Amino acid sequence: MFIAEKGLEVEKREVDLMNGEQLTPEFMEINPFCTVPVLELDDGTRLRDNASIARYLEETHPTPPLLGTTPIEKAMIAEWDMHVLSEGFAAVGEAFRNRSKGFKGRATTGPVGFEQIPELAERGAARAKNFLSLLDRRLAETEFVGGDSYSIADITATVTIDFAGWIKLEIGDDQKALRAWYDRMAKRPSYSA
Amino acid sequence: MFIAEKGLEVEKREVDLMNGEQLTPEFMEINPFCTVPVLELDDGTRLRDNASIARYLEETHPTPPLLGTTPIEKAMIAEWDMHVLSEGFAAVGEAFRNRSKGFKGRATTGPVGFEQIPELAERGAARAKNFLSLLDRRLAETEFVGGDSYSIADITATVTIDFAGWIKLEIGDDQKALRAWYDRMAKRPSYSA
Repeated sequence: MFIAEKGLEVEKREVDLMNGEQLTPEFMEINPFCTVPVLELDDGTRLRDNASIARYLEETHPTPPLLGTTPIEKAMIAEWDMHVLSEGFAAVGEAFRNRSKGFKGRATTGPVGFEQIPELAERGAARAKNFLSLLDRRLAETEFVGGDSYSIADITATVTIDFAGWIKLEIGDDQKALRAWYDRMAKRPSYSA
Repeated sequence: MFIAEKGLEVEKREVDLMNGEQLTPEFMEINPFCTVPVLELDDGTRLRDNASIARYLEETHPTPPLLGTTPIEKAMIAEWDMHVLSEGFAAVGEAFRNRSKGFKGRATTGPVGFEQIPELAERGAARAKNFLSLLDRRLAETEFVGGDSYSIADITATVTIDFAGWIKLEIGDDQKALRAWYDRMAKRPSYSA
């Protein structure tokens, strides 16, 4: 979505996470952290995290800005993006990876296998549900997650909502601000890109 | 440390986390997420996360740069800072909060109380140990965590190492690159600030 919003095109290569392609020696050569996404630059440099990819693309392709324009906007977008990531995306990830059959024996990202913790799956699901309430309250106050303009925080939050579907967590009927925002996000061309 | 490295001074106010001051109505007025640090600007705006504080201060006080100078440096520093945060700091936090008596009934940050999960404390400790190995390998290759220059990633990693002491995890005798880097970090005036 970030790349599409920037109007860029990159050659894509899918990685089959459910079948553990990220743990193969071939992929570990590309990214020893065994995570996606990875962006390979023309000189062969590999950026192995959303944080580095976003920062690099924002610096090299500043328009449209997705990390904010003024110092305070940049700060608030960084804050909300981090909040969505740690309280929303990570919580859904905890719930999903600690109970999905496909992730038995590898409940965390990375090359080391850890057993699932069912209690953590429950806690993650509860945290994810709380996060949706918080996001609904936020979006009753601001047009976008990071403030007055569309940003990476909206992208991270949109992905989190979609990911929440995997643990059967949906936007609540009473979460009208969250629903209206999500519907706007899903209509952006970058959503279908 | 970030503020000291920038040569800035701010009025400080300590928050007694062990006794739950972050959960009082007074503090929740300041930061509803119940976390530290918080930086209050002169106009009353509150930045409630390391990510927003660092970004704001870097934009308003660019020298010395702590988030990188070129696009690729900014990207690699963002990547390593995120990696230290999610694989190092968060792992130590999991270990500590899920077994420390002081955090019984509030094993996560934020206003909602969650019970401790002893298995997660174990997993966090194992992940934190793996992280020290990874960081030692990284520092055998580069002078600083984020690459060739001192950055926020060194600050996050230094804090992580000190925090690891709380779960009785120390730098290993064989981790010579990590030890040499840590000793350099601890000698910086910002470490004692």
